[in-house]
Amino acid sequence: MEFSFEEHPHKRLNILTGDWILVSPHRTKRPWQGKVEAAAITERPSYDPQCYLCPGNVRSDGSTNPNYKAPFAFTNDFSSLLTDTPDGGLNVKGLLQAKSEKGICRVVCFSPRHDLTLPQMDIENIVELIELWKKEFQELSKNEWIKYIQIFENKGDIMGCSNPHPHGQIWSQSSIPVEPEKETIQFKKYFEQNSRSILADYLIEEEKSKERLVCENEHFIALVPFWAVWPYECIIISKRQVQYTHQFNTEETLALAEVLKTLTIKYDNLFETSFPYSSGIHQAPVNDGEHPEWHWHMHFYPPLLRSATVKKFMVGYEMMANPQRDITAEQAAKKLRELPDVHYLAK
Amino acid sequence: MEFSFEEHPHKRLNILTGDWILVSPHRTKRPWQGKVEAAAITERPSYDPQCYLCPGNVRSDGSTNPNYKAPFAFTNDFSSLLTDTPDGGLNVKGLLQAKSEKGICRVVCFSPRHDLTLPQMDIENIVELIELWKKEFQELSKNEWIKYIQIFENKGDIMGCSNPHPHGQIWSQSSIPVEPEKETIQFKKYFEQNSRSILADYLIEEEKSKERLVCENEHFIALVPFWAVWPYECIIISKRQVQYTHQFNTEETLALAEVLKTLTIKYDNLFETSFPYSSGIHQAPVNDGEHPEWHWHMHFYPPLLRSATVKKFMVGYEMMANPQRDITAEQAAKKLRELPDVHYLAK
Ligand SMILES: O=P(O)(O)O[C@H]1O[C@H](CO)[C@@H](O)[C@H](O)[C@H]1O
Ligand SMILES: O=P(O)(O)O[C@H]1O[C@H](CO)[C@@H](O)[C@H](O)[C@H]1O
Repeated sequence: MEFSFEEHPHKRLNILTGDWILVSPHRTKRPWQGKVEAAAITERPSYDPQCYLCPGNVRSDGSTNPNYKAPFAFTNDFSSLLTDTPDGGLNVKGLLQAKSEKGICRVVCFSPRHDLTLPQMDIENIVELIELWKKEFQELSKNEWIKYIQIFENKGDIMGCSNPHPHGQIWSQSSIPVEPEKETIQFKKYFEQNSRSILADYLIEEEKSKERLVCENEHFIALVPFWAVWPYECIIISKRQVQYTHQFNTEETLALAEVLKTLTIKYDNLFETSFPYSSGIHQAPVNDGEHPEWHWHMHFYPPLLRSATVKKFMVGYEMMANPQRDITAEQAAKKLRELPDVHYLAK
Repeated sequence: MEFSFEEHPHKRLNILTGDWILVSPHRTKRPWQGKVEAAAITERPSYDPQCYLCPGNVRSDGSTNPNYKAPFAFTNDFSSLLTDTPDGGLNVKGLLQAKSEKGICRVVCFSPRHDLTLPQMDIENIVELIELWKKEFQELSKNEWIKYIQIFENKGDIMGCSNPHPHGQIWSQSSIPVEPEKETIQFKKYFEQNSRSILADYLIEEEKSKERLVCENEHFIALVPFWAVWPYECIIISKRQVQYTHQFNTEETLALAEVLKTLTIKYDNLFETSFPYSSGIHQAPVNDGEHPEWHWHMHFYPPLLRSATVKKFMVGYEMMANPQRDITAEQAAKKLRELPDVHYLAK
């Protein structure tokens, strides 16, 4: 018997974190009698008087949203990190260690329209959103004590999103958190040996084999990474190596808007539902010297596995031992690649 | 303003993994309008003719369960790892790396009774279960190619458990997975410097402060670790440093059964529900030489945050940047500690 990636259990290396993940391709045959989620509600009014993110409505801190027409950002009324946290810490023999942490948390409304999601937005509005991400990032970076800025979106109530109005968040903070720190180490290690970005070299291999590509244009590629953990996990990588979103020129920004739209349309088309995910843009740390090793990318971690209502559970074995997936990255990429890039509701 | 752990955002170090976690204690004030889970169903028949784990019933591979009276183990009909996987792998310039992986996956029925859970089982039956865990572990270890054995339980459909019959699993495999590998590194680092177990020294500090203790007896302590990520995460640590469950003598085994029962009763009492969690026993790798640095412990990762129906979501920020929690470990421990150790349904 010959070893086959399509059939046999194996491990794969995540070059961005240095961790291995377990793949069990034969396991999708398993019947599912467990938890079934409610399908996402796709019909919503374009304005909801109860929504604290809609234009003109009152927020929980008592302030009123402006009558915004384009993407709009404000400081989170329930920020997880604050600017006025006093310095402090603890170190009991290295066994109990803690440090105070400061930060600024922002909310970004993608659109004044309550009923839209990224795949349903016009390209020009997605471009406006990317421009707002750039502006917010640059404004936050002006605080010299801020070392890292995480832009992310939780989409769908299954991903802990408590308001369906299209929005994302930006958490910025005074130290570099675990995941970007791991990536910085991996980027650096490769750069020191090869004077190249590890993702640039990885892209060369992916362009050769093509089996994990989902969609691409002149400036960006969306693919299921070789080491994907979530069933339909994707990564968007810029073809030109930059460290920050604001380094993208007008043409690249438009291309990013296009690849974002196409990927999220394919996601919605997969199970004909408003496809839930958490996405996040990984950029180099800020106020931390040069990072020539860093390469801009954006992760999408969607939980659904079999249908609009059956998700992958990352539980016992995955929490205690090792991330594990059931279908291969190649199978997932093929499915996504072959889906139409017109939204199923737009027909 | 003085820095306070009860009030101000801060980071804490997980000494078992080397990773930091973010704590935002002020954040529980946030209102919740998001996803609400169905409460766990607590009424079940003691025998269910449809259940493939009940004694005497037919399983999906066509075999029939014996009429078992005590905890019962069998090989998983949908094993994620298999014994006959051929060797193989891939290494494209270090960028695409994969290796085949072999293993044996077992299912352990905790009780013939379909309607029980760990907190409702008699102490003598929990002792029988621990004895079965020991036996299974030792049997699996006889395969020299097996390097690590993970015993775990997914409890509740919210934790991906597809059958409410009380059961857990054992996944054993030919390499050491990510989490135990990280812990081995941390255990070794400390042992090389101090010739002591890091958890033994950590326990000394916890016994002094007492503020994170949940329950204890002569041989075991259950506490909310200083670095807990899940709202009511707990760890059970043995007072005597051993590497494996089968090193526990009769008295220690009884004490472990008792602490398991008390902790899970407190969990059920917290929100008066069958409390969901994933738990797992971390033991030293096997067939891998001596591990004098390793110290037996058991993790409990429960998702609930505010009630039987509102959980903590580990999503956008947590996935992209850093694990994050809202209540402090001390607040969680106090709540659990003060709960009665008689089950709310047994009154
Ligand atoms: O093996 P089960 O119980 O069918 O499956 C459950 O536990 C496994 C191990 O943690 C996970 O991989 C699955 O996602 C989960 O649904
Ligand atoms: O800030 P939100 O949207 O209320 O909260 C959501 O995103 C946060 C950041 O990923 C998580 O910590 C919360 O668990 C989740 O419910």
